[in-house]
Amino acid sequence: MNIAIVGLGIIGGSLAKAFVKYTDNRITAINRTRSTLEKALADGAIHEIGTADSLLSADIVYMCTYPDHIVEFVKENADKFKKGCIITDVCGIKSEICGRMSEICAEKGLTFCGSHPMAGKEKFSYDASEADLFQGASYIIVPCEAPQSAVDTLSDQAKLLGFSNIRITTPSEHDRMIAFTSQLPHVLACSYVKSPCCPNHKGFSAGSYRDVSRVASINENLWTDLFLDNKEPLCEEISILIDNLTRFRELIANDDREQLRLQLKEARLIKEALGE
Amino acid sequence: MNIAIVGLGIIGGSLAKAFVKYTDNRITAINRTRSTLEKALADGAIHEIGTADSLLSADIVYMCTYPDHIVEFVKENADKFKKGCIITDVCGIKSEICGRMSEICAEKGLTFCGSHPMAGKEKFSYDASEADLFQGASYIIVPCEAPQSAVDTLSDQAKLLGFSNIRITTPSEHDRMIAFTSQLPHVLACSYVKSPCCPNHKGFSAGSYRDVSRVASINENLWTDLFLDNKEPLCEEISILIDNLTRFRELIANDDREQLRLQLKEARLIKEALGE
Repeated sequence: MNIAIVGLGIIGGSLAKAFVKYTDNRITAINRTRSTLEKALADGAIHEIGTADSLLSADIVYMCTYPDHIVEFVKENADKFKKGCIITDVCGIKSEICGRMSEICAEKGLTFCGSHPMAGKEKFSYDASEADLFQGASYIIVPCEAPQSAVDTLSDQAKLLGFSNIRITTPSEHDRMIAFTSQLPHVLACSYVKSPCCPNHKGFSAGSYRDVSRVASINENLWTDLFLDNKEPLCEEISILIDNLTRFRELIANDDREQLRLQLKEARLIKEALGE
Repeated sequence: MNIAIVGLGIIGGSLAKAFVKYTDNRITAINRTRSTLEKALADGAIHEIGTADSLLSADIVYMCTYPDHIVEFVKENADKFKKGCIITDVCGIKSEICGRMSEICAEKGLTFCGSHPMAGKEKFSYDASEADLFQGASYIIVPCEAPQSAVDTLSDQAKLLGFSNIRITTPSEHDRMIAFTSQLPHVLACSYVKSPCCPNHKGFSAGSYRDVSRVASINENLWTDLFLDNKEPLCEEISILIDNLTRFRELIANDDREQLRLQLKEARLIKEALGE
């Protein structure tokens, strides 16, 4: 198959490298910054530097740019896609994207099938990309209005790239769960490092500090978009967390030893029941 | 030197194993559960199973039990320690322990020098202990009223065990910093897993979820004591975090794109300036 990847950041770059490493597909990439394309070509991460005209031969187009740019790009180039090609994305929110993309694609007879590779790092450029980023990770498919054949194609490719778990869901379930599993930890990390104690942590910290603060190395441009595009579920999760923190603070302040112990135990049992 | 370790949980057990692996010291252990001592002896993690009478030959006694038990044990056995021996602990709070221990030790002519190895895991029994748990970790020494020679002895031993960074501080600075670096992440993890979304996280989660939730596998008995013994600094850190989360929630709810971006950027710059 011919694969076009639009946007060679950490996810686009890793998809390209994984396709080259694990499949026989031909990989063309489109990217705003020319030097990144040249680097990727020199690395053997892509077979060809593409332009919008290369879309004509692509069987699957992976849109790996910011949410807003995905919609703009597809709108602008709607006539250049091959008939029957599948357009997907790698975006961290889905209600907003699926709504807008399904509309554009329906008008132009294109197929949009959303997806979200659950992998990443606290670095976000092409230089951080790697062929094995997706090994063992989940791949979420949000079909929107796409036919089963498109879902199957994306799922088959995902397995080849190393994803071990394919989850098919709706835009709203996706966004509610991602607000909890991914967006909230990012808001949390950024809130955490703002404590006046943070600059003095060295010598006093170990794994707990490192884990909670890790994703504070955030790409503020991307995550501002993602947070605002998923406002309601995210604000709800922040509120739930604030409520739980407030309850713990009360138990501690009131020296309520027995309730505190019970509430911590309850958390441990939830965590243990879930394994990883 | 003769080393006595009282309490063979993850920290006591790891100290024993590290002493055997990296020093020529002779290691005696005292533990409530006899079978753990027998296991440790069979593992070669200790040289001898001790009783309170073994304290007479110990040059350093590492108290690795719960905070309350440390004070009780030393009080009860105060006449059995060797003259000139150093008693230390591995406890996660210091104002409470140092105050009570310094008083008892002063009465009996013993030296107490607090310490806190900044290492651990989300498991807490002897079975989770390992000789290399402390490699590269910080060792915090809280001298209380101990002489410099005791600080030097503990520091020298810590370096032999693999600690790479020795930090000497006061009880109150220790407790304020630990409230932020260690206790808050534990309260946070337990608050986080209580979201109604948590049981459904599988397939939707990756590193961010795993990192924030990791220490929800908490030892509720130990941490209830630690939290209540450090009530004020911890409640203050919880409040600071709640304030920061509340501010982010407001920016998101109000669609304040520019401030949100700036606040996220500020967090990134704090994190980047601190490196790890």
